Amino acid sequence: MAIIVQKFGGKSLMDPDRIRSAVERILERKHQGHGMVVVVSAMGSTTDALIQLAKQVNPDPHPREMDMLLATGEQVSIALVAMALQAKGHDAVSFTGAQVGIRTDAIHMKAKIKDIRAERLKAALEKGQIAIVAGFQGVTDDEAITTLGRGGSDTTAVALAAVLKAELCEIFTDVEGVYTADPHIVPDARKIERMSYDEMMELASLGAKVLQYRAVEFAKKYKVRLVKRSASSRAEGTLICEEVEQMEDIVVSGAALSKDEAKITLVGVSDRPGTAAKIFRQIASRNIVVDMIIQNRSRGGFTDLTFTVPRTDLKETVALAETLAKAGDAKEFLADDDVAKVSIVGIGMRSHCGIAERMFQSLADEKINIDLIATSEIKISVVIRRKDGEKALRAVHKAFDLGKGAGK
Amino acid sequence: MAIIVQKFGGKSLMDPDRIRSAVERILERKHQGHGMVVVVSAMGSTTDALIQLAKQVNPDPHPREMDMLLATGEQVSIALVAMALQAKGHDAVSFTGAQVGIRTDAIHMKAKIKDIRAERLKAALEKGQIAIVAGFQGVTDDEAITTLGRGGSDTTAVALAAVLKAELCEIFTDVEGVYTADPHIVPDARKIERMSYDEMMELASLGAKVLQYRAVEFAKKYKVRLVKRSASSRAEGTLICEEVEQMEDIVVSGAALSKDEAKITLVGVSDRPGTAAKIFRQIASRNIVVDMIIQNRSRGGFTDLTFTVPRTDLKETVALAETLAKAGDAKEFLADDDVAKVSIVGIGMRSHCGIAERMFQSLADEKINIDLIATSEIKISVVIRRKDGEKALRAVHKAFDLGKGAGK
Repeated sequence: MAIIVQKFGGKSLMDPDRIRSAVERILERKHQGHGMVVVVSAMGSTTDALIQLAKQVNPDPHPREMDMLLATGEQVSIALVAMALQAKGHDAVSFTGAQVGIRTDAIHMKAKIKDIRAERLKAALEKGQIAIVAGFQGVTDDEAITTLGRGGSDTTAVALAAVLKAELCEIFTDVEGVYTADPHIVPDARKIERMSYDEMMELASLGAKVLQYRAVEFAKKYKVRLVKRSASSRAEGTLICEEVEQMEDIVVSGAALSKDEAKITLVGVSDRPGTAAKIFRQIASRNIVVDMIIQNRSRGGFTDLTFTVPRTDLKETVALAETLAKAGDAKEFLADDDVAKVSIVGIGMRSHCGIAERMFQSLADEKINIDLIATSEIKISVVIRRKDGEKALRAVHKAFDLGKGAGK
Repeated sequence: MAIIVQKFGGKSLMDPDRIRSAVERILERKHQGHGMVVVVSAMGSTTDALIQLAKQVNPDPHPREMDMLLATGEQVSIALVAMALQAKGHDAVSFTGAQVGIRTDAIHMKAKIKDIRAERLKAALEKGQIAIVAGFQGVTDDEAITTLGRGGSDTTAVALAAVLKAELCEIFTDVEGVYTADPHIVPDARKIERMSYDEMMELASLGAKVLQYRAVEFAKKYKVRLVKRSASSRAEGTLICEEVEQMEDIVVSGAALSKDEAKITLVGVSDRPGTAAKIFRQIASRNIVVDMIIQNRSRGGFTDLTFTVPRTDLKETVALAETLAKAGDAKEFLADDDVAKVSIVGIGMRSHCGIAERMFQSLADEKINIDLIATSEIKISVVIRRKDGEKALRAVHKAFDLGKGAGK
């Protein structure tokens, strides 16, 4: 029996009607003869409402208690989806992250899955039950409830698909798939039919808000075939899978805009071996994820070190930068959250020249100044002024003929 | 270190302000040097809202999934109360029923506590932490989440007080204690200062809605000193404890009205040994609690058997009565949920005569007809027409001088 893992996001479960629609999608696959595991997020804006509630009793709540609080959102969803399936006469059973054996580390609110003891899930599948699993959550060895961070339900779904060797992992959302750019900003953005794990990972990490980065990383590692599709339409979604040769013909697959980052510059850092390592070790120890790192040419034994971090971690990073400056590791520091990042991604970049030049020219034509540049084998990102974000995304999208009418 | 267990009901945690008030009550005791365990219910009308949500996806939801759903209400509360304590600089830690080792049987929605593995709780207390525990819930040996039925948080609190040998178990609610009758119906009802476990058990089982019956039963068994008091005022509450002699001077302690019952009469039941046992065994096997049982004089080898059950179980009881009638165990049956039950309770009844007569006369004076009568050593209950309920309660309350101005 082939197993399919489906994941429904909060918008796809916002009210009883949408829950019934999700049930239809589950039963379509069930009737095809598949063993079904369904991962669900919290309904609608439940998580945000719970965060607001927490802030009212404690402006800086302890992460352990936040996890205790937030995990209830998905628990409500699993019960309701199981009930809705039972109302249709099907045998369904719900599981929390703890019950399904999703063991994580103890980094509350950003926990990482260590292993999954899927015996209960397998037993349910063998009995022909539809297993409904709470996404986004797990449990430490000490039985404390943890959450995996925003978008963590994607990771739950892919991790379960990997453990169960599922044939497919379907991620249902409120859009029809992955687009060449955010259609809210770039009206002629086109749905991508198929893309590689590597491209998807770059897009996910660049703020495209399409799939959680770790979910795609997991999918790549365990070769989980991943489809992102709409919960409300039957349109084919976007398949994320291993690279196929024909993909390389397309130079740039998509473009993304992120406004979730902030820039920190440490001025006058001693240019000695080990200094950068020391600085980033201290940042990492606080579980802050650094994205871009740029070090300028050294002058007189000192250099400037610029890096970007999630805006939500800026306060903590600034505190750390102050400590470093006081300890003499840097002369001073500059923090700037008035920035945006625009990126292009495509595995075709590997074998095509002039991509960076074309991107920079399109921005120059719009009189957009570039602050920072970072590149990888299949990606180019630039940091610009925040106000220029949307304009830059549209310019880049056009420059690479990513639109509906173009490139055909 | 003496331990105090406090329990806050849903109304006492309805919003962030009330949570902060609860935190003050917790800290008052903490500052007295007590080890603190706090049991909480779901905020305000959360449980009812969740039930409504469930009904929208499934009119007859599976009890296992209902428990999965309802348990989230208390989980939200424990996280928020812990956060609110942390905001005041105190070390607090929240626990679900499962985490705190409250093992129950697998009768979902009415589970009974089998045992409590309180090691984690004791460890938290030894570290000086304030332990916040989700009331109303437990976990089966199979790790399925269960709930203890309405009012179950009282039972959680008393059970923890018993296991931890707590000095006191304080139940905070929105009223100042236990009254001689419901003050909404009987305006001059008086707060009772002290009553015995037995009286409280009778009152609780009679629909006084003051404390859960099982909680008081537990308190009696393990001699837990129980106080019911207001969360919003500093008034002394009602102490429920072992009997003291002076109590017997008061003939009747309180009166109660219940509209939560329904009456079933099996007509033409064969009057042979074992028939009643068979019938009630079948009812018990469905976990339906029968309250009053009245069997009339036998005529021609047949008798009528009348009993009362909770209104919520009437549907299932009727189905069972149909089966019994079809199997020839009864000729026919009558179901009637247009009834109310009025009761008086008092350990003084044991040594005083004429109590029943005085009660019946007070009802007769109001032209209220009595359908059924049941008595115990310390209680008399009558079933009457539903519309006469409030009038009967007031009449009985007056007949025994229970009011504020009376009996002095």
